[in-house]
Amino acid sequence: MTNNQLTESGRLKHFLTIEGLKRDLLTDIMDHAEQFSSLSGRQVKKVPLLRGKTIMNLFFENSTRTRTTFELAAKRLSADVLNLNINTSATSKGESLLDTLHNLQAMHADMFVVRHNKSGAAEFIAQHVAPHVSVINAGDGCHAHPTQAMLDMFTIRRHKQHFPDLCVAIVGDVLHSRVARSQIQALATLGVGEVRIIGPQTLLPADSQTLGVHVYHDMEKGLKDVDVIITLRLQIERMQGALLPSPQEYYESYGLTEEKLKLAKPDAIVMHPGPINRGVEIASSIADGPQSVILEQVTHGIAVRMAVMSMVLGSQSEQQDDST
Amino acid sequence: MTNNQLTESGRLKHFLTIEGLKRDLLTDIMDHAEQFSSLSGRQVKKVPLLRGKTIMNLFFENSTRTRTTFELAAKRLSADVLNLNINTSATSKGESLLDTLHNLQAMHADMFVVRHNKSGAAEFIAQHVAPHVSVINAGDGCHAHPTQAMLDMFTIRRHKQHFPDLCVAIVGDVLHSRVARSQIQALATLGVGEVRIIGPQTLLPADSQTLGVHVYHDMEKGLKDVDVIITLRLQIERMQGALLPSPQEYYESYGLTEEKLKLAKPDAIVMHPGPINRGVEIASSIADGPQSVILEQVTHGIAVRMAVMSMVLGSQSEQQDDST
Amino acid sequence: MTNNQLTESGRLKHFLTIEGLKRDLLTDIMDHAEQFSSLSGRQVKKVPLLRGKTIMNLFFENSTRTRTTFELAAKRLSADVLNLNINTSATSKGESLLDTLHNLQAMHADMFVVRHNKSGAAEFIAQHVAPHVSVINAGDGCHAHPTQAMLDMFTIRRHKQHFPDLCVAIVGDVLHSRVARSQIQALATLGVGEVRIIGPQTLLPADSQTLGVHVYHDMEKGLKDVDVIITLRLQIERMQGALLPSPQEYYESYGLTEEKLKLAKPDAIVMHPGPINRGVEIASSIADGPQSVILEQVTHGIAVRMAVMSMVLGSQSEQQDDST
Repeated sequence: MTNNQLTESGRLKHFLTIEGLKRDLLTDIMDHAEQFSSLSGRQVKKVPLLRGKTIMNLFFENSTRTRTTFELAAKRLSADVLNLNINTSATSKGESLLDTLHNLQAMHADMFVVRHNKSGAAEFIAQHVAPHVSVINAGDGCHAHPTQAMLDMFTIRRHKQHFPDLCVAIVGDVLHSRVARSQIQALATLGVGEVRIIGPQTLLPADSQTLGVHVYHDMEKGLKDVDVIITLRLQIERMQGALLPSPQEYYESYGLTEEKLKLAKPDAIVMHPGPINRGVEIASSIADGPQSVILEQVTHGIAVRMAVMSMVLGSQSEQQDDST
Repeated sequence: MTNNQLTESGRLKHFLTIEGLKRDLLTDIMDHAEQFSSLSGRQVKKVPLLRGKTIMNLFFENSTRTRTTFELAAKRLSADVLNLNINTSATSKGESLLDTLHNLQAMHADMFVVRHNKSGAAEFIAQHVAPHVSVINAGDGCHAHPTQAMLDMFTIRRHKQHFPDLCVAIVGDVLHSRVARSQIQALATLGVGEVRIIGPQTLLPADSQTLGVHVYHDMEKGLKDVDVIITLRLQIERMQGALLPSPQEYYESYGLTEEKLKLAKPDAIVMHPGPINRGVEIASSIADGPQSVILEQVTHGIAVRMAVMSMVLGSQSEQQDDST
Repeated sequence: MTNNQLTESGRLKHFLTIEGLKRDLLTDIMDHAEQFSSLSGRQVKKVPLLRGKTIMNLFFENSTRTRTTFELAAKRLSADVLNLNINTSATSKGESLLDTLHNLQAMHADMFVVRHNKSGAAEFIAQHVAPHVSVINAGDGCHAHPTQAMLDMFTIRRHKQHFPDLCVAIVGDVLHSRVARSQIQALATLGVGEVRIIGPQTLLPADSQTLGVHVYHDMEKGLKDVDVIITLRLQIERMQGALLPSPQEYYESYGLTEEKLKLAKPDAIVMHPGPINRGVEIASSIADGPQSVILEQVTHGIAVRMAVMSMVLGSQSEQQDDST
């Protein structure tokens, strides 16, 4: 299933999950993003790479921030972008999801950017679209959020260069986090020395062995000498039952404070996918402090999404050339 | 009233209804659409024809699908598009419809694409806009939906070439369907051999004589040897009182099944304006089957709307040339 | 505080309020607007001045009309525009306003157009954005609406040329009107001969002396021999308590009728920021009559906003040049 995101020649056709992708491809994405990154500082932040392409943002789950970064990335590539809030539209007339998709691709859409609260939704859609349509997963349930993972990798590379030397700690609700799942896969693929997950037992996945990560239940041990600390957002709305203590209790045990941060390497960087709950996952002084790269992550999000979009649509024209 | 959509030299100024338009003009629209249709397959699906023009989608009635096709058509012509959901905006401040329109045209809008649940709304607006503004009817009440009719004609021509030889059957709620009304006028104007309408008495118009169509109340007779079958959407929300049997009963009598389809010519095509109610108006196997051209209709909808938009704004510059 | 909208060399960096700006600068805005104004009549209403710039409309308070004019202005300058309805998005996830802003500017936004129901909101935001971001106030509480004031000045200049010779009357709820506040400052800065405010005591500001205006409580005296009459919208939703009589009573006392209009100079122009309450602030026959320039105001709104946007982003590149 995970290989259907590649063309026969091994290029990206869809971008659904990090799982199953080779290190070279992830590096390639980061190298492309590096080029687009320099663009942002210029007077004209635009290239004509995707001129005349139609990109549709299909957001079944609301997310202004993520939608905005994809919309900006598409516009800076000169594509035409349409935002479709699917919940409130066609399906309210009783049309099935597949009929909606088939209609949209009949309008010669080139790419669907999909966000959905069901795991596997982007993959399902990718399996059912026409050959001329690419699908990018912008987050599906608790499953994957591959562009977020890649912008995190890009941010780490900007600061730390050599992945094998690094020790990375991911703190918080790893169990329900599609971000963490994709990050762990990306870190493993890039050959990071050690990946730790830190959190209460109820918020960590049972299959940590398979994931190849080290499990810690307290911050003091888990943060010791790490190079990178990734704090996760408490996805309160996604949790079921009483897995979670109060925000105050959580902050005491797993919130990143100045004191706890001192346990990491002195040049450790601090990350968060946003939006931040200040005083819950992280102290404000750290979020705004010198070791935080949280806003850089946002900036790099545009460059990484431009990279993925242009690579995916580049592989498309390759296919068309083949068929000619 | 119907002639106010033409300029003095007979070109399209507005596009409000098929009624009163000459065959040459309908053919002209289809010929233009043919050119734009070839564009969709290209890498760059864009032409600079309407660069610097401002098109405003005024949707008083919600319709993601139709709005999307107009938005795409406008963007592929390089126009600037604004979507205005009028219900939730200015009029909520107590401003009258005409004041809203006058304000929008004062912003140098070149075109209003209007969808409204009141019959005659687009015509009313066209009567009150400034000379520099064109109006396209994207569906008004039970009255007309001329771009839908033209994309249907274009789809038929793609498959069947010569209109006079054809027998076309329209099945379902003809009485309340602005789509059917516009289709019947277009088919008549194009000189189609025979047009049949099929449905229960309560869903067919009383003036079928005037319309020049043959009326059938059962599918077995009505579909016999037809070339084109147009199934209509059951507009449940638009019907008043108990005109309609249950969806199951409707499907039994008027749903298009494999068995009933066999009564038509072997190469008959099957159409539907969408969104489909599968198992009500049409069997899923037919909607997705080899005789269905339903998704082609969607594709052609873009090309036909590009044709109408560029012709309408082309006649505008003609007027401006005249006045210079 | 009011000077933080200028760069060190005295050019516009933000546009937050008329207060503290010099006459030359206001004249400069109008001269720029004059150039863009001629553009609107052309076939291609577009210039590439802001190509590759990203402008974000941050509307915390709903306003289709104002948002539309800013969106059109930005598109006609070839910028990329994003509309963000902040109430319904990020802040609903518990993110603070500043975090939202910092995230948006991390996406390399060049300009925020801000509308907010709290006075001082745009200024607050301008104080907290990064040096590369400009802020335009599109209306904050009862405080200021500087682009509206400038489009009004531009409209007056189009009809009356020489400001010192003019007598301008502003009628209605001056107390709660950010429009009136900015107009009075602009008229004073441009050296208008006399400014009068007319309304019931409860709707006029207590500091009229400081404002340098003459106060009138009845229309007969207040309108005598004026050159310009600006009627204000009754901002019913912004008033607290029972300051206001019934609309009928208001119209009798302060509504602009044919009879009252005769008291002004025969060539007086009549203005209103819109949307109009016909039969409350103004008689329909006047709003649609020969002395009304209300729709011209809307048209000029685009040109003035293009002028401000291009000047503000022009000063930005000046800064960048300096730093190089």
